[in-house]
Amino acid sequence: MLSRTAEYALRAIVWLADHPETPVTGQALAAATQVPPDYLAKVMQSLVRAGLVEAQRGKNGGFSLVSTPEEVTILEVINAVEPVRRIRTCPLGLAGHESLCPLHRSLDNIAGQLERAYGAIRLTDLRSGGVKPLCPVLEGPHA
Amino acid sequence: MLSRTAEYALRAIVWLADHPETPVTGQALAAATQVPPDYLAKVMQSLVRAGLVEAQRGKNGGFSLVSTPEEVTILEVINAVEPVRRIRTCPLGLAGHESLCPLHRSLDNIAGQLERAYGAIRLTDLRSGGVKPLCPVLEGPHA
Repeated sequence: MLSRTAEYALRAIVWLADHPETPVTGQALAAATQVPPDYLAKVMQSLVRAGLVEAQRGKNGGFSLVSTPEEVTILEVINAVEPVRRIRTCPLGLAGHESLCPLHRSLDNIAGQLERAYGAIRLTDLRSGGVKPLCPVLEGPHA
Repeated sequence: MLSRTAEYALRAIVWLADHPETPVTGQALAAATQVPPDYLAKVMQSLVRAGLVEAQRGKNGGFSLVSTPEEVTILEVINAVEPVRRIRTCPLGLAGHESLCPLHRSLDNIAGQLERAYGAIRLTDLRSGGVKPLCPVLEGPHA
């Protein structure tokens, strides 16, 4: 289950991947992705900190991807804002639980499946298919 | 990624599944699962509303499972408190997105995998293995 923050980060990075020609301003990005500008600003800070996005200041400044869309998986985007939590030790700190109990082992197995599923999708994979991500906005005033 | 509420609901229901002899009081359940009592009370309300748990009042009252552990999957427990969100329509409400874009189709596919993974695990499956769920507490004062 994806958090709102992760969903917003993915919308932003997908938009940047689709607009490689020139940096995109925070304002244009907020409009295109339908994310409140203040919220998006925090999300973008996390993406910059994680080295996925760079922010250029100045007149023609804005956000752009650091790497090519081929090189970025959606797991990296999600982990930049709200990492998939793996369960390494008993969350209850129970004595005698050096190995995970069946409940937490099962939950961690599923978290591992989730990690692999997100890690298998690259930004380029999101370009195929009939409907382009966030596409009608592309033709709007903020494109 | 499991929310704290879902994790707490699973701890509670696993404890009840392991203690079928007699209803378990809220106080004993909170101690065994290490969940703050007020938080647990809300979680238990959701489980009762979903028909997974029944609450008996009175001197020997407490919580117990409605069905046998064989009949309950962890998906049902999770869905009782914080359902796995599927993406049925474009979250941005974009015109022309009658079908999901590749981003949201991918995210929904993964949500579907998650649903199936949780749906494949029954409470009885959590009894196998060397370490019993929440076991050391079993030997403590609240057992």
